[in-house]
Amino acid sequence: MTIRGAMGLPVVGMVGGGQLSRMTHQAAIALGLSLRVLADATHDSAALVANGVVLGEHTSLADLRSFAADCEVVTFDHEHVPGELIEALEADGVQVYPSSAALRHAQDKLVMRERLAGLGAPVPPFCPIATLADVEGFGRHVGWPLVLKAATGGYDGKGVWVVRTPEEAAEIISSGVRLMAEQLVPLQRELAAVVARSPYGQAAAWPVVETVQEDGMCVEVVAPAPGLSEERALEAQGLALRLAQELDVVGVLAVELFETADGLLVNELAMRPHNSAHWTIEGSRTSQFEQHLRAVLDYPLGTTQLTAPWVVMANVLGGPDAEGFDERLHMLFAKDPSLKVHLYGKEVRPGRKIGHVTALAAPGEGLDDVRRRAREGADHLRGGTA
Amino acid sequence: MTIRGAMGLPVVGMVGGGQLSRMTHQAAIALGLSLRVLADATHDSAALVANGVVLGEHTSLADLRSFAADCEVVTFDHEHVPGELIEALEADGVQVYPSSAALRHAQDKLVMRERLAGLGAPVPPFCPIATLADVEGFGRHVGWPLVLKAATGGYDGKGVWVVRTPEEAAEIISSGVRLMAEQLVPLQRELAAVVARSPYGQAAAWPVVETVQEDGMCVEVVAPAPGLSEERALEAQGLALRLAQELDVVGVLAVELFETADGLLVNELAMRPHNSAHWTIEGSRTSQFEQHLRAVLDYPLGTTQLTAPWVVMANVLGGPDAEGFDERLHMLFAKDPSLKVHLYGKEVRPGRKIGHVTALAAPGEGLDDVRRRAREGADHLRGGTA
Repeated sequence: MTIRGAMGLPVVGMVGGGQLSRMTHQAAIALGLSLRVLADATHDSAALVANGVVLGEHTSLADLRSFAADCEVVTFDHEHVPGELIEALEADGVQVYPSSAALRHAQDKLVMRERLAGLGAPVPPFCPIATLADVEGFGRHVGWPLVLKAATGGYDGKGVWVVRTPEEAAEIISSGVRLMAEQLVPLQRELAAVVARSPYGQAAAWPVVETVQEDGMCVEVVAPAPGLSEERALEAQGLALRLAQELDVVGVLAVELFETADGLLVNELAMRPHNSAHWTIEGSRTSQFEQHLRAVLDYPLGTTQLTAPWVVMANVLGGPDAEGFDERLHMLFAKDPSLKVHLYGKEVRPGRKIGHVTALAAPGEGLDDVRRRAREGADHLRGGTA
Repeated sequence: MTIRGAMGLPVVGMVGGGQLSRMTHQAAIALGLSLRVLADATHDSAALVANGVVLGEHTSLADLRSFAADCEVVTFDHEHVPGELIEALEADGVQVYPSSAALRHAQDKLVMRERLAGLGAPVPPFCPIATLADVEGFGRHVGWPLVLKAATGGYDGKGVWVVRTPEEAAEIISSGVRLMAEQLVPLQRELAAVVARSPYGQAAAWPVVETVQEDGMCVEVVAPAPGLSEERALEAQGLALRLAQELDVVGVLAVELFETADGLLVNELAMRPHNSAHWTIEGSRTSQFEQHLRAVLDYPLGTTQLTAPWVVMANVLGGPDAEGFDERLHMLFAKDPSLKVHLYGKEVRPGRKIGHVTALAAPGEGLDDVRRRAREGADHLRGGTA
């Protein structure tokens, strides 16, 4: 379908009103595109700032259909739209990117693991889990502790459990969640390879980054990953590009990786703009949000050149004090006039991602100083005792 | 008044729904601020993309009052709000930046010229004009041709006439417009010095740029101005900073300058984000739109460091063909994957500013190539035979 807005440019629909839609809207504004957002509530991060907001449930086919009818292309800011609803849209003739067939691999960890193993991509040893006996058998194979993961629905460390004993595993199994088990990989650090791909098949990769997690949540991203050999960087980018093609991903694909003594292993996939590439807003000539739009509209992709030798992003988490942002912002601007601040307009809850800051190396500035500025900026906005 | 939106951050109101509001909205989104826009119509450039849009007339005190009641600070994307209405808002206790007293100097060219002359700032010889005898007298002093300007209401070359003879002048005088006359300055080129200033008195300057006009309209901006001596650059920045302080400007101040064999002369002032600083979106660590918001909210200002050795902006003007933007955008992305595109969502009319593109020097790329890329990109989006 051809659905055009201002200047005869396409109308893009994004399901989900979170910060990814919010930042995609900023990119859409520059390109003259009309972004429509399907949001849960008027106080959703994107709904606060976009005018093309439709309120509705992403689990309601009627709401999705009505939303999609006014969009040339539909894409997502999260993975939570049930696959059968996306299939129904596709059957209606809606252009959905990524497609239901591709997105399954970001929605279901077990499907993803099995497919990647089939493709010969490096993944940790894993096993579907239905019974305690399954875990015990897998534990004999990979040792304890091991990792249990909900096959679907987890994010930011939710739905992932490191279990030490069969007893701990039994408790999780009893919850009835569909599970898989995975070896607890002795990792050196986590990396992310983020690429974008268009329906035409053009693809572009940003430099591989190091991601730092705390309590299962990304807190810091360093671009490019420090000390990463050229060879391993190319391996990671090549892997992400190959997966994008094999899985027929359209849009941004983030491949979260473990770096181990024995090489790279794929941890998770995300098929949308991703926290590990927020640094691209200022740190790359083309941000992941612009690139995602270009990709889903089958425009040629933009250059991924860095704008500084080092770029560090730190997430701002909600702290104990939900008030006082105006004063904290004021003080932060005074303290570091070159830090870039992104706040998502979200209600502050302790530990919730409410924004991020990006520090870019000034001429001659070393990585340690850039990291310190990003961390201190994020801590400062969080407020309270860190 | 303290009027807070999401995260307890201030609500900023911008009068006018043009592209300056549109791009300010992008900056507001990043900072978590709530921007309200007073627009003429739902198809205004900013009204297409912002959710805090109020429809109303910027010449109606009732509309302005009702708009301002929900804003902590009110600012402008144009100079067309009558000064007496701004004064009425100020009398109500509304925090307006720039103030009516400052803004007069951007609204009335004769007031500006007289004030600047009084401050000892370099301005071309000028004279208020009421009768043909006034022009004839001034012409005997500065020679013909000379320039007539409407004291108020002109922009983009409108309201400016180069007249060769008293007869030509007589025709313009007969129209009843309030006029001033100015020497036709033998200029070498035009420059712009853009600064921002906060109520606290902090100020920051971007590098001085060269601006290229065609038919009185800015078509190209080169940052920094090529071949400008350090001494003259400092003189221009110092002049702009001094004028910001003397006129008590809050927000962005653009000082348009003539460079002549005898030195710099002030041409025009604008007290809002300005076309001569659109390049700062990607070309400076702090864009003029972010800086304007920081200034009117009295936050400390951001660093104005460049992100590339050369940054060139070219305006995209409406061409003969209002259709086909999607195809032209596609082709442009293929042709130059590093060009940054900004389209304003405006109805295409020949010669109307409908967007801009920004080219940033890649490592080792010379100015000629950067200029060529910007110009070709803008021409390409314009379409038709240039």
